[in-house]
Amino acid sequence: MINDTAAGMPDAVRWLPDERALRLLDQRALPDNEIFVVCCGTEAAARAIENMTVRGAPAIGIAAAYGAVLSADGGRDAVIAAIDRLSRTRPTAVNLFAALERMRHRLDGTGNDADIFAALLEEADAILRDDIEANRRMGAFGAELLPDDAVVLTHCNAGAIATGGHGTALGVIRSAREAGKRVKVFADETRPLFQGARLTVWELERDGFDVTLIAEGMAGALMRSTRIDAVIVGADRIAANGDTANKIGTYGLSVLAKEHGVPFYIAAPFTTVDTSLFSGASIPIEQRSDEEMRALPNGMRVPDGVRVWNPAFDVTPAENITAIITERGVFRYPYKFN
Amino acid sequence: MINDTAAGMPDAVRWLPDERALRLLDQRALPDNEIFVVCCGTEAAARAIENMTVRGAPAIGIAAAYGAVLSADGGRDAVIAAIDRLSRTRPTAVNLFAALERMRHRLDGTGNDADIFAALLEEADAILRDDIEANRRMGAFGAELLPDDAVVLTHCNAGAIATGGHGTALGVIRSAREAGKRVKVFADETRPLFQGARLTVWELERDGFDVTLIAEGMAGALMRSTRIDAVIVGADRIAANGDTANKIGTYGLSVLAKEHGVPFYIAAPFTTVDTSLFSGASIPIEQRSDEEMRALPNGMRVPDGVRVWNPAFDVTPAENITAIITERGVFRYPYKFN
Repeated sequence: MINDTAAGMPDAVRWLPDERALRLLDQRALPDNEIFVVCCGTEAAARAIENMTVRGAPAIGIAAAYGAVLSADGGRDAVIAAIDRLSRTRPTAVNLFAALERMRHRLDGTGNDADIFAALLEEADAILRDDIEANRRMGAFGAELLPDDAVVLTHCNAGAIATGGHGTALGVIRSAREAGKRVKVFADETRPLFQGARLTVWELERDGFDVTLIAEGMAGALMRSTRIDAVIVGADRIAANGDTANKIGTYGLSVLAKEHGVPFYIAAPFTTVDTSLFSGASIPIEQRSDEEMRALPNGMRVPDGVRVWNPAFDVTPAENITAIITERGVFRYPYKFN
Repeated sequence: MINDTAAGMPDAVRWLPDERALRLLDQRALPDNEIFVVCCGTEAAARAIENMTVRGAPAIGIAAAYGAVLSADGGRDAVIAAIDRLSRTRPTAVNLFAALERMRHRLDGTGNDADIFAALLEEADAILRDDIEANRRMGAFGAELLPDDAVVLTHCNAGAIATGGHGTALGVIRSAREAGKRVKVFADETRPLFQGARLTVWELERDGFDVTLIAEGMAGALMRSTRIDAVIVGADRIAANGDTANKIGTYGLSVLAKEHGVPFYIAAPFTTVDTSLFSGASIPIEQRSDEEMRALPNGMRVPDGVRVWNPAFDVTPAENITAIITERGVFRYPYKFN
């Protein structure tokens, strides 16, 4: 058992050594039900990433790493096929590709076929451990940016369950509290999948924070009527110039933050930076199913004759981002990551 | 039958002369069910306004006017009590108070008690007729502001069913089409009550428009990726300086529109202007029940330990508003309504 770093929080991703299987917290069932999905093969893990049983850029990277381990008994070719399958699950978060790249590299460095399983499991464990360590470090860096009595607005879920543990944006909030600061949190509900209303407020309330839920449309009125010290969100991919892809709605928040003079922070592990992309214009943005938007309360539906636009992410331009908090330190505009 | 001005659209508010009753389209049941609620007394009408069976600033004014008629048989004191009750239903939309003020004035001018019912019904009918006429006129003014091939973003529902007929923001869109222009519409789903996803897209699709649903959080990404010619929304109350209260989320849209150089228009009858208020800071903002935000898909709920902030409206400052379209013409910043 490697993780368990956020007290009382079930791990999003955990390897079961006895079962030689991957256990995922089913995040679609939260907050009402804490149920786990056990994946015994790569295909099951891939589908769990696609259908968002597991979500959050760092967590899907870790889940994919273990997903590759699940094919290790099939030998080298099976692992290569597994990595290929897992790389076709979701296009935007670069952590997925970074984790699979590490697994591929480890595979290539393992000469004896009999050692593949142990080597890949060791690598996946290391990816998980590195993620938690990165979150702890970025949390400490980020905590210094907050006042002693801070009011923070966050979007989607960049918490313990979006990562190996502790969280990125919520890791900063946790670290601030550990440093003796008081933090009050407002959380966007985050349509269409309600990651804020289902996951973030559940995670923070369980961890003893004062947390208030708002709808995305309320963020502007909130900033006009209440002192907000910072907006802190996670990231799915950061281009070389600092442009950042994150959950849809993040860009609009950055514009509101700028309008109101509120610092706007990204918290993400350094692996989220994709220096191969000059700007955010090259980040692939996943379009998800209409169905996520068509389902209405009480079983009602948006009529089929109505079109739906459902991008899962947007890109916030670097100039709207006050700082990017990573485990290597706090970067500021204009961004240079080399 | 006075209304029926939007072809094929059921009237939000209609007086049934034979039954001497008020028929309301139950907007909570749309889009799946077209059902009507018949109110035989003032209390039923008041509750229908409170629980949003009928909603939309102009429509609740009209419904309240007929709601007062429902007490006419009880005589002068009953009507005064009815007006008082109806004025305590919802605090933000000034149309409600303007309509009740007209009813009170008509009552005061009716000397013979035997004439009260006929006089009040005539006045309520006139309020309805005036609203449709105002929407037609503001539609014509607003249509001139749109290009021949227009892409418009709207928020909440400011359509035929939010008014006596034709609509305010959607009335402008309808009038533009009648003037030979092509209009493609994006509609915000409008959390928490989904007036955009339930009402606006239903109304526009039924009326043959090309309409695409987005979540509020997508508006920024939409403006960055697509040419939007105008944002057009309705209003619940406009202060003397042009500050405008409208459905929560409107202010954030105005900031995004400014950021992207997109004209931001309010369409509302002149009765929405409350010259007794110097600025939007004095507009009372209704806070609605937590329950509207706590209900999640699949019967799940936001935990009770989490706070919820649920203002129904926000205030957009006058300087963010390109123009206010009324039946008396198009006003521009700095606003002077006298």
